[in-house]
Amino acid sequence: MNDWLASLKTETPQKGFELAIELARKGVAYTQPSADIRKKLRPKYAKNADSLIMTSQVIAIHFQTVAAANNYWK
Amino acid sequence: MNDWLASLKTETPQKGFELAIELARKGVAYTQPSADIRKKLRPKYAKNADSLIMTSQVIAIHFQTVAAANNYWK
Amino acid sequence: MNDWLASLKTETPQKGFELAIELARKGVAYTQPSADIRKKLRPKYAKNADSLIMTSQVIAIHFQTVAAANNYWK
Amino acid sequence: MNDWLASLKTETPQKGFELAIELARKGVAYTQPSADIRKKLRPKYAKNADSLIMTSQVIAIHFQTVAAANNYWK
Amino acid sequence: MNDWLASLKTETPQKGFELAIELARKGVAYTQPSADIRKKLRPKYAKNADSLIMTSQVIAIHFQTVAAANNYWK
Amino acid sequence: MNDWLASLKTETPQKGFELAIELARKGVAYTQPSADIRKKLRPKYAKNADSLIMTSQVIAIHFQTVAAANNYWK
Repeated sequence: MNDWLASLKTETPQKGFELAIELARKGVAYTQPSADIRKKLRPKYAKNADSLIMTSQVIAIHFQTVAAANNYWK
Repeated sequence: MNDWLASLKTETPQKGFELAIELARKGVAYTQPSADIRKKLRPKYAKNADSLIMTSQVIAIHFQTVAAANNYWK
Repeated sequence: MNDWLASLKTETPQKGFELAIELARKGVAYTQPSADIRKKLRPKYAKNADSLIMTSQVIAIHFQTVAAANNYWK
Repeated sequence: MNDWLASLKTETPQKGFELAIELARKGVAYTQPSADIRKKLRPKYAKNADSLIMTSQVIAIHFQTVAAANNYWK
Repeated sequence: MNDWLASLKTETPQKGFELAIELARKGVAYTQPSADIRKKLRPKYAKNADSLIMTSQVIAIHFQTVAAANNYWK
Repeated sequence: MNDWLASLKTETPQKGFELAIELARKGVAYTQPSADIRKKLRPKYAKNADSLIMTSQVIAIHFQTVAAANNYWK
């Protein structure tokens, strides 16, 4: 895969949150490399509350990492 | 998305808990950007005990981050 | 919501555990604000082993936070 | 509830693991206070692989806390 | 139960990973002490992708603990 | 099993993420040692959104460990 993660540092907490989202997506993309298949799965899980909550949880775990890497933007 | 997260600092633990809730919701909102669809999903999952427990778990993970960012409001 | 969380400090580990339970419940209460609906859900999930284990997990995550806030009551 | 958790300190890692199990059980017991109902649920979930794995996960989360409280028994 | 966990220290990260696996299994074994029943459950969950992913997650949580105990083998 | 994990150190965050993926897979491989069976499970779970999200979660947990081991590549 191309370079996509040079640093965990972000300018703001919000950009850190968005990096956490990217990390959650990459975890899926490495496991299912076909963009076509991922695209087909999207409409279904994006309308399933439990799938959305689970996705939010993965983001939360990555956000812990990104926040620690940025010393919580103190 | 507009600016919505300038800092992880909050005045009190309770406001930190409420920020954790906001973070959990944002994780869903970034994944399902349609407010309409999220609104339709809400009545169902808000009456499902397991969905509520899972939501509470995402909040708990974010609360860890917010609490650490605030040095546990010591 | 009224003030309910002034501090993460507790006198003993057990009181910290009980605070973790309160935090887990509040995560549910913020998401489903109707006490009536929560009350109706209770008999069902309280007799479901998996729901109980999931609840125990949310408590465990919050207990990590509370324990850290109290420097593990060392 | 009676006093059951005076300290997170244990003599050995193994005793810490056993405390983590106790904490996981207490999370269930506070949520479902009836020992009768918990007893009835036990035979079923104790023969369900996913329930056992989920239980093991709650133990793992508590063991993180107990291990940190004991400075990893270094 | 006999002594099985004297220390969280391991010589290498790989041995730490293997200890994490042992800890995940012990969490199951304490909850379902019958080796016979655990043996019967194994063929089924070992062929279920979600059960395997959940098991991998418990290992991941324990590996965090073991890695911290070993100062990440720095 | 052969040596496969000599160190948690990686040159870049991206290589750390890829190590986290490897760790998640190893957690599965130790539990289900048959490469044949794992191969048979793959097509199914790789097309199941919830399985992919769960996998992404295990990666996220391991990435926390790897990131901490690398002092967040600061």
